[in-house]
Amino acid sequence: MDDYTLHQQQISGNCYKIRLTAALVGVKLKTIEYDIRKGETRTPEYLSTINAAGKIPVLEIGKDTFLPESSAACYYLATGSRLIPSDRLEHAQMLRWMFFEQFAHEPAIASLRWWITYVGVDNLSEEQKYLMPVKRRQGEEVLGIMDQHLASRKFFVAEKMTLADIALFAYTHVADEGEFDLGRWPNVKAWCERVKEEPGYVSIEV
Amino acid sequence: MDDYTLHQQQISGNCYKIRLTAALVGVKLKTIEYDIRKGETRTPEYLSTINAAGKIPVLEIGKDTFLPESSAACYYLATGSRLIPSDRLEHAQMLRWMFFEQFAHEPAIASLRWWITYVGVDNLSEEQKYLMPVKRRQGEEVLGIMDQHLASRKFFVAEKMTLADIALFAYTHVADEGEFDLGRWPNVKAWCERVKEEPGYVSIEV
Repeated sequence: MDDYTLHQQQISGNCYKIRLTAALVGVKLKTIEYDIRKGETRTPEYLSTINAAGKIPVLEIGKDTFLPESSAACYYLATGSRLIPSDRLEHAQMLRWMFFEQFAHEPAIASLRWWITYVGVDNLSEEQKYLMPVKRRQGEEVLGIMDQHLASRKFFVAEKMTLADIALFAYTHVADEGEFDLGRWPNVKAWCERVKEEPGYVSIEV
Repeated sequence: MDDYTLHQQQISGNCYKIRLTAALVGVKLKTIEYDIRKGETRTPEYLSTINAAGKIPVLEIGKDTFLPESSAACYYLATGSRLIPSDRLEHAQMLRWMFFEQFAHEPAIASLRWWITYVGVDNLSEEQKYLMPVKRRQGEEVLGIMDQHLASRKFFVAEKMTLADIALFAYTHVADEGEFDLGRWPNVKAWCERVKEEPGYVSIEV
Protein backbone atom coordinates (compact mmCIF):
# COMPACT_ATOMS: atom_id res chain seq x y z
CA MET A 1 0.00 0.00 0.00
CA ASP A 2 1.16 3.51 -0.75
CA ASP A 3 2.54 5.78 1.90
CA TYR A 4 0.50 8.98 2.25
CA THR A 5 1.57 12.34 3.62
CA LEU A 6 -0.96 15.12 3.99
CA HIS A 7 0.45 18.64 3.77
CA GLN A 8 -2.15 20.43 5.83
CA GLN A 9 -3.32 22.82 8.50
CA GLN A 10 -5.32 20.98 11.16
CA ILE A 11 -8.10 23.59 11.48
CA SER A 12 -8.75 23.79 7.72
CA GLY A 13 -12.00 22.14 6.69
CA ASN A 14 -10.52 21.29 3.30
CA CYS A 15 -7.77 19.32 5.04
CA TYR A 16 -10.28 17.71 7.40
CA LYS A 17 -12.21 16.31 4.41
CA ILE A 18 -9.19 14.23 3.49
CA ARG A 19 -8.57 13.03 7.05
CA LEU A 20 -12.23 12.06 7.42
CA THR A 21 -12.21 10.21 4.10
CA ALA A 22 -9.03 8.37 5.05
CA ALA A 23 -10.50 7.39 8.43
CA LEU A 24 -13.71 6.09 6.86
CA VAL A 25 -11.86 3.95 4.32
CA GLY A 26 -9.20 2.82 6.81
CA VAL A 27 -6.13 4.48 5.28
CA LYS A 28 -3.37 5.90 7.47
CA LEU A 29 -1.99 9.39 6.74
CA LYS A 30 1.10 11.10 8.02
CA THR A 31 0.61 14.85 8.35
CA ILE A 32 2.92 17.83 7.98
CA GLU A 33 1.53 21.00 9.54
CA TYR A 34 1.67 24.51 8.00
CA ASP A 35 0.23 27.83 9.15
CA ILE A 36 -1.10 29.74 6.16
CA ARG A 37 -1.42 32.87 8.33
CA LYS A 38 2.39 32.87 8.54
CA GLY A 39 2.84 32.38 4.79
CA GLU A 40 4.22 28.87 5.22
CA THR A 41 2.58 27.67 1.98
CA ARG A 42 3.92 30.64 0.01
CA THR A 43 7.65 29.95 0.39
CA PRO A 44 9.63 29.46 -2.85
CA GLU A 45 10.26 25.86 -1.82
CA TYR A 46 6.57 25.09 -1.26
CA LEU A 47 5.54 26.77 -4.50
CA SER A 48 8.17 25.01 -6.60
CA THR A 49 7.80 21.54 -5.08
CA ILE A 50 4.44 20.96 -3.43
CA ASN A 51 1.83 23.26 -4.99
CA ALA A 52 2.33 26.17 -7.37
CA ALA A 53 -1.01 27.55 -6.19
CA GLY A 54 0.40 28.01 -2.67
CA LYS A 55 -2.47 26.20 -1.03
CA ILE A 56 -3.12 23.37 1.37
CA PRO A 57 -4.18 20.59 1.41
CA VAL A 58 -1.87 18.60 -0.82
CA LEU A 59 -1.84 14.81 -0.64
CA GLU A 60 1.61 13.39 -1.25
CA ILE A 61 1.35 9.87 -2.64
CA GLY A 62 4.43 7.78 -2.03
CA LYS A 63 7.27 10.22 -2.46
CA ASP A 64 7.19 13.27 -4.71
CA THR A 65 3.76 12.72 -6.28
CA PHE A 66 1.66 15.68 -5.22
CA LEU A 67 -2.12 15.93 -5.52
CA PRO A 68 -3.64 19.33 -4.62
CA GLU A 69 -7.37 20.10 -4.28
CA SER A 70 -9.17 18.50 -1.38
CA SER A 71 -11.95 16.85 -3.36
CA ALA A 72 -9.51 15.26 -5.81
CA ALA A 73 -7.50 13.86 -2.90
CA CYS A 74 -10.67 12.46 -1.28
CA TYR A 75 -11.62 10.81 -4.56
CA TYR A 76 -8.16 9.28 -4.90
CA LEU A 77 -8.23 7.81 -1.39
CA ALA A 78 -11.82 6.57 -1.66
CA THR A 79 -11.47 4.96 -5.08
CA GLY A 80 -13.17 1.57 -5.00
CA SER A 81 -14.81 2.20 -1.62
CA ARG A 82 -18.46 2.51 -0.55
CA LEU A 83 -18.02 6.31 -0.44
CA ILE A 84 -18.12 6.51 -4.26
CA PRO A 85 -21.32 5.19 -5.87
CA SER A 86 -20.78 2.87 -8.80
CA ASP A 87 -24.06 3.84 -10.46
CA ARG A 88 -23.30 6.33 -13.24
CA LEU A 89 -25.99 8.85 -12.31
CA GLU A 90 -25.40 8.64 -8.56
CA HIS A 91 -21.69 9.12 -9.21
CA ALA A 92 -22.37 12.25 -11.27
CA GLN A 93 -24.77 13.58 -8.62
CA MET A 94 -22.03 13.06 -6.03
CA LEU A 95 -19.64 15.12 -8.16
CA ARG A 96 -22.33 17.75 -8.64
CA TRP A 97 -22.47 18.43 -4.89
CA MET A 98 -18.68 18.35 -4.61
CA PHE A 99 -18.41 21.03 -7.31
CA PHE A 100 -21.24 22.99 -5.69
CA GLU A 101 -19.28 22.90 -2.44
CA GLN A 102 -16.11 24.29 -3.98
CA PHE A 103 -17.84 26.89 -6.13
CA ALA A 104 -20.59 28.20 -3.88
CA HIS A 105 -20.24 26.86 -0.33
CA GLU A 106 -16.57 27.02 0.61
CA PRO A 107 -15.87 30.57 -0.69
CA ALA A 108 -18.70 31.91 1.50
CA ILE A 109 -18.93 29.77 4.62
CA ALA A 110 -15.27 28.84 5.04
CA SER A 111 -14.11 32.42 4.48
CA LEU A 112 -16.37 33.85 7.17
CA ARG A 113 -15.30 31.15 9.62
CA TRP A 114 -11.65 31.86 8.90
CA TRP A 115 -11.96 35.62 9.15
CA ILE A 116 -14.12 35.70 12.28
CA THR A 117 -12.54 32.91 14.34
CA TYR A 118 -8.98 32.47 13.07
CA VAL A 119 -7.89 35.88 11.75
CA GLY A 120 -10.13 38.17 13.79
CA VAL A 121 -12.40 40.85 12.37
CA ASP A 122 -10.09 43.64 13.59
CA ASN A 123 -7.23 42.19 11.55
CA LEU A 124 -9.08 41.95 8.23
CA SER A 125 -8.10 43.95 5.17
CA GLU A 126 -10.52 46.55 3.80
CA GLU A 127 -11.32 44.14 0.97
CA GLN A 128 -12.16 41.34 3.40
CA LYS A 129 -14.33 43.66 5.49
CA TYR A 130 -16.16 44.76 2.34
CA LEU A 131 -16.79 41.13 1.40
CA MET A 132 -18.23 40.01 4.75
CA PRO A 133 -21.89 40.85 3.98
CA VAL A 134 -21.50 39.50 0.44
CA LYS A 135 -20.33 36.17 1.79
CA ARG A 136 -22.98 36.19 4.51
CA ARG A 137 -25.69 36.47 1.87
CA GLN A 138 -24.10 33.74 -0.29
CA GLY A 139 -23.65 31.42 2.69
CA GLU A 140 -27.27 31.77 3.74
CA GLU A 141 -28.41 30.98 0.20
CA VAL A 142 -26.23 27.86 0.09
CA LEU A 143 -27.49 26.59 3.44
CA GLY A 144 -31.04 27.14 2.21
CA ILE A 145 -30.40 25.04 -0.89
CA MET A 146 -28.87 22.27 1.23
CA ASP A 147 -31.75 22.39 3.70
CA GLN A 148 -34.32 22.09 0.92
CA HIS A 149 -32.47 19.15 -0.66
CA LEU A 150 -32.24 17.35 2.69
CA ALA A 151 -35.93 17.86 3.48
CA SER A 152 -36.69 14.53 1.83
CA ARG A 153 -33.31 12.79 2.09
CA LYS A 154 -30.97 11.34 4.70
CA PHE A 155 -27.79 12.06 2.69
CA PHE A 156 -27.05 14.12 -0.41
CA VAL A 157 -26.96 11.22 -2.86
CA ALA A 158 -28.31 7.66 -2.92
CA GLU A 159 -29.52 7.74 0.70
CA LYS A 160 -26.10 6.81 2.02
CA MET A 161 -22.89 8.53 2.94
CA THR A 162 -20.72 9.49 -0.05
CA LEU A 163 -17.90 11.95 -0.70
CA ALA A 164 -20.59 14.58 -1.35
CA ASP A 165 -21.51 14.46 2.34
CA ILE A 166 -17.89 14.62 3.44
CA ALA A 167 -17.20 17.62 1.19
CA LEU A 168 -20.25 19.54 2.41
CA PHE A 169 -19.97 18.49 6.06
CA ALA A 170 -16.42 19.77 6.58
CA TYR A 171 -17.25 23.48 6.72
CA THR A 172 -20.97 23.15 7.49
CA HIS A 173 -20.56 21.48 10.88
CA VAL A 174 -18.31 24.32 12.06
CA ALA A 175 -20.34 27.08 10.41
CA ASP A 176 -21.11 28.51 13.86
CA GLU A 177 -17.47 29.66 13.89
CA GLY A 178 -18.51 31.90 10.99
CA GLU A 179 -21.60 33.01 12.93
CA PHE A 180 -24.11 30.94 10.99
CA ASP A 181 -26.77 29.52 13.31
CA LEU A 182 -27.62 26.06 11.94
CA GLY A 183 -30.83 26.15 13.97
CA ARG A 184 -32.24 28.11 11.02
CA TRP A 185 -31.64 25.11 8.74
CA PRO A 186 -32.91 22.13 10.78
CA ASN A 187 -32.52 19.55 8.01
CA VAL A 188 -28.87 20.51 7.67
CA LYS A 189 -28.43 20.28 11.43
CA ALA A 190 -29.99 16.80 11.57
CA TRP A 191 -27.85 15.64 8.64
CA CYS A 192 -24.69 16.79 10.46
CA GLU A 193 -25.67 14.51 13.35
CA ARG A 194 -26.16 11.59 10.95
CA VAL A 195 -22.70 12.11 9.48
CA LYS A 196 -21.19 12.04 12.96
CA GLU A 197 -22.80 8.65 13.59
CA GLU A 198 -21.01 7.06 10.62
CA PRO A 199 -18.77 4.15 11.74
CA GLY A 200 -15.16 5.33 11.69
CA TYR A 201 -16.05 9.02 12.01
CA VAL A 202 -13.29 11.27 13.36
CA SER A 203 -13.69 14.88 14.46
CA ILE A 204 -11.81 17.87 13.02
CA GLU A 205 -9.63 18.04 16.13
CA VAL A 206 -7.90 14.67 15.70
CA MET B 1 -29.37 5.70 -25.68
CA ASP B 2 -30.67 8.38 -23.37
CA ASP B 3 -32.18 11.55 -24.66
CA TYR B 4 -30.32 14.63 -23.43
CA THR B 5 -31.57 18.18 -23.04
CA LEU B 6 -29.18 20.93 -22.02
CA HIS B 7 -30.77 23.84 -20.17
CA GLN B 8 -28.30 26.54 -21.11
CA GLN B 9 -27.29 29.97 -22.31
CA GLN B 10 -25.24 29.72 -25.50
CA ILE B 11 -22.59 32.30 -24.51
CA SER B 12 -21.91 30.72 -21.10
CA GLY B 13 -18.56 28.94 -20.92
CA ASN B 14 -19.96 26.51 -18.36
CA CYS B 15 -22.62 25.47 -20.88
CA TYR B 16 -20.06 25.30 -23.67
CA LYS B 17 -18.04 22.75 -21.68
CA ILE B 18 -20.94 20.33 -21.89
CA ARG B 19 -21.54 20.92 -25.61
CA LEU B 20 -17.83 20.44 -26.35
CA THR B 21 -17.72 17.23 -24.31
CA ALA B 22 -20.82 15.92 -26.06
CA ALA B 23 -19.34 16.73 -29.47
CA LEU B 24 -16.05 15.02 -28.67
CA VAL B 25 -17.76 11.83 -27.48
CA GLY B 26 -20.38 11.88 -30.22
CA VAL B 27 -23.51 12.45 -28.15
CA LYS B 28 -26.37 14.61 -29.41
CA LEU B 29 -27.92 17.25 -27.14
CA LYS B 30 -31.10 19.21 -27.49
CA THR B 31 -30.81 22.68 -26.00
CA ILE B 32 -33.26 25.02 -24.31
CA GLU B 33 -32.05 28.61 -24.14
CA TYR B 34 -32.36 30.95 -21.12
CA ASP B 35 -31.09 34.49 -20.54
CA ILE B 36 -29.82 34.82 -16.99
CA ARG B 37 -29.71 38.61 -17.41
CA LYS B 38 -33.51 38.51 -17.64
CA GLY B 39 -33.88 36.27 -14.58
CA GLU B 40 -35.06 33.33 -16.64
CA THR B 41 -33.33 30.81 -14.34
CA ARG B 42 -34.81 32.41 -11.23
CA THR B 43 -38.49 31.81 -11.93
CA PRO B 44 -40.42 29.75 -9.32
CA GLU B 45 -40.86 27.04 -11.96
CA TYR B 46 -37.15 26.82 -12.78
CA LEU B 47 -36.15 26.81 -9.11
CA SER B 48 -38.67 24.13 -8.12
CA THR B 49 -38.13 21.83 -11.10
CA ILE B 50 -34.78 22.26 -12.78
CA ASN B 51 -32.27 23.68 -10.30
CA ALA B 52 -32.90 25.08 -6.82
CA ALA B 53 -29.64 27.02 -7.16
CA GLY B 54 -31.12 29.02 -10.06
CA LYS B 55 -28.17 28.36 -12.33
CA ILE B 56 -27.42 27.04 -15.76
CA PRO B 57 -26.21 24.67 -17.11
CA VAL B 58 -28.39 21.75 -16.12
CA LEU B 59 -28.23 18.51 -18.08
CA GLU B 60 -31.61 16.78 -18.26
CA ILE B 61 -31.15 13.05 -18.72
CA GLY B 62 -34.13 11.35 -20.28
CA LYS B 63 -37.10 13.13 -18.77
CA ASP B 64 -37.13 14.77 -15.34
CA THR B 65 -33.67 13.72 -14.18
CA PHE B 66 -31.72 16.93 -13.69
CA LEU B 67 -27.96 17.20 -13.25
CA PRO B 68 -26.62 20.67 -12.42
CA GLU B 69 -22.93 21.70 -12.30
CA SER B 70 -21.10 21.77 -15.60
CA SER B 71 -18.21 19.51 -14.59
CA ALA B 72 -20.54 16.84 -13.22
CA ALA B 73 -22.50 16.89 -16.47
CA CYS B 74 -19.30 16.59 -18.52
CA TYR B 75 -18.23 13.64 -16.40
CA TYR B 76 -21.59 11.94 -16.88
CA LEU B 77 -21.50 12.33 -20.67
CA ALA B 78 -17.85 11.28 -20.98
CA THR B 79 -18.08 8.22 -18.72
CA GLY B 80 -16.20 5.38 -20.38
CA SER B 81 -14.64 7.61 -23.05
CA ARG B 82 -11.03 8.58 -23.78
CA LEU B 83 -11.67 11.95 -22.09
CA ILE B 84 -11.53 10.32 -18.63
CA PRO B 85 -8.25 8.55 -17.81
CA SER B 86 -8.63 5.09 -16.33
CA ASP B 87 -5.39 5.34 -14.36
CA ARG B 88 -6.24 6.18 -10.74
CA LEU B 89 -3.68 8.96 -10.33
CA GLU B 90 -4.30 10.53 -13.75
CA HIS B 91 -8.02 10.45 -13.00
CA ALA B 92 -7.47 12.25 -9.69
CA GLN B 93 -5.19 14.81 -11.36
CA MET B 94 -7.94 15.44 -13.92
CA LEU B 95 -10.40 16.11 -11.10
CA ARG B 96 -7.82 18.34 -9.40
CA TRP B 97 -7.77 20.71 -12.37
CA MET B 98 -11.55 20.58 -12.71
CA PHE B 99 -11.93 21.65 -9.06
CA PHE B 100 -9.22 24.29 -9.52
CA GLU B 101 -11.23 25.67 -12.45
CA GLN B 102 -14.43 25.97 -10.46
CA PHE B 103 -12.81 27.32 -7.32
CA ALA B 104 -10.15 29.69 -8.65
CA HIS B 105 -10.49 30.18 -12.41
CA GLU B 106 -14.17 30.58 -13.20
CA PRO B 107 -15.03 33.05 -10.39
CA ALA B 108 -12.31 35.40 -11.64
CA ILE B 109 -12.01 35.02 -15.39
CA ALA B 110 -15.62 34.21 -16.25
CA SER B 111 -16.95 37.03 -14.07
CA LEU B 112 -14.81 39.69 -15.74
CA ARG B 113 -15.77 38.41 -19.18
CA TRP B 114 -19.44 38.51 -18.26
CA TRP B 115 -19.33 41.95 -16.70
CA ILE B 116 -17.21 43.62 -19.39
CA THR B 117 -18.69 42.07 -22.54
CA TYR B 118 -22.20 40.89 -21.68
CA VAL B 119 -23.45 43.20 -18.91
CA GLY B 120 -21.37 46.29 -19.59
CA VAL B 121 -19.22 48.11 -17.04
CA ASP B 122 -21.69 51.01 -16.83
CA ASN B 123 -24.44 48.62 -15.77
CA LEU B 124 -22.53 46.92 -12.93
CA SER B 125 -23.57 47.18 -9.29
CA GLU B 126 -21.27 48.93 -6.82
CA GLU B 127 -20.31 45.51 -5.47
CA GLN B 128 -19.35 44.25 -8.93
CA LYS B 129 -17.32 47.41 -9.63
CA TYR B 130 -15.52 46.97 -6.33
CA LEU B 131 -14.69 43.36 -7.20
CA MET B 132 -13.25 44.06 -10.66
CA PRO B 133 -9.62 44.61 -9.54
CA VAL B 134 -9.89 41.71 -7.07
CA LYS B 135 -10.92 39.37 -9.86
CA ARG B 136 -8.30 40.82 -12.19
CA ARG B 137 -5.56 39.95 -9.70
CA GLN B 138 -7.00 36.44 -9.12
CA GLY B 139 -7.37 35.80 -12.85
CA GLU B 140 -3.78 36.79 -13.55
CA GLU B 141 -2.56 34.47 -10.82
CA VAL B 142 -4.59 31.57 -12.23
CA LEU B 143 -3.30 32.11 -15.76
CA GLY B 144 0.24 32.20 -14.37
CA ILE B 145 -0.26 28.83 -12.64
CA MET B 146 -1.66 27.33 -15.85
CA ASP B 147 1.19 28.75 -17.93
CA GLN B 148 3.79 27.30 -15.59
CA HIS B 149 2.11 23.87 -15.62
CA LEU B 150 1.94 23.87 -19.42
CA ALA B 151 5.59 24.88 -19.84
CA SER B 152 6.54 21.20 -19.97
CA ARG B 153 3.24 19.64 -21.04
CA LYS B 154 0.93 19.47 -24.05
CA PHE B 155 -2.25 19.00 -22.00
CA PHE B 156 -3.05 19.31 -18.29
CA VAL B 157 -2.95 15.58 -17.52
CA ALA B 158 -1.45 12.49 -19.13
CA GLU B 159 -0.27 14.32 -22.27
CA LYS B 160 -3.65 13.97 -23.91
CA MET B 161 -6.96 15.75 -23.94
CA THR B 162 -9.13 15.08 -20.90
CA LEU B 163 -12.05 16.78 -19.18
CA ALA B 164 -9.50 18.92 -17.33
CA ASP B 165 -8.62 20.62 -20.62
CA ILE B 166 -12.26 21.10 -21.56
CA ALA B 167 -13.06 22.62 -18.15
CA LEU B 168 -10.13 25.05 -18.29
CA PHE B 169 -10.42 25.84 -22.00
CA ALA B 170 -14.02 27.04 -21.89
CA TYR B 171 -13.38 30.41 -20.24
CA THR B 172 -9.67 30.67 -21.04
CA HIS B 173 -10.03 30.80 -24.81
CA VAL B 174 -12.44 33.73 -24.53
CA ALA B 175 -10.53 35.48 -21.74
CA ASP B 176 -9.88 38.40 -24.10
CA GLU B 177 -13.58 39.26 -23.61
CA GLY B 178 -12.61 39.90 -19.99
CA GLU B 179 -9.62 41.96 -21.12
CA PHE B 180 -6.98 39.35 -20.37
CA ASP B 181 -4.29 39.34 -23.06
CA LEU B 182 -3.24 35.70 -23.48
CA GLY B 183 -0.05 36.90 -25.17
CA ARG B 184 1.28 37.28 -21.62
CA TRP B 185 0.87 33.54 -21.07
CA PRO B 186 2.26 31.95 -24.25
CA ASN B 187 2.03 28.35 -23.06
CA VAL B 188 -1.65 28.85 -22.35
CA LYS B 189 -2.13 30.40 -25.78
CA ALA B 190 -0.39 27.49 -27.52
CA TRP B 191 -2.44 24.97 -25.52
CA CYS B 192 -5.67 26.69 -26.62
CA GLU B 193 -4.62 26.11 -30.22
CA ARG B 194 -3.95 22.43 -29.50
CA VAL B 195 -7.41 22.00 -28.00
CA LYS B 196 -8.96 23.52 -31.12
CA GLU B 197 -7.19 20.91 -33.27
CA GLU B 198 -8.86 18.02 -31.43
CA PRO B 199 -10.96 15.89 -33.83
CA GLY B 200 -14.63 16.70 -33.28
CA TYR B 201 -13.92 20.14 -31.78
CA VAL B 202 -16.80 22.62 -31.93
CA SER B 203 -16.61 26.33 -31.18
CA ILE B 204 -18.62 28.17 -28.52
CA GLU B 205 -20.84 29.70 -31.21
CA VAL B 206 -22.38 26.46 -32.45
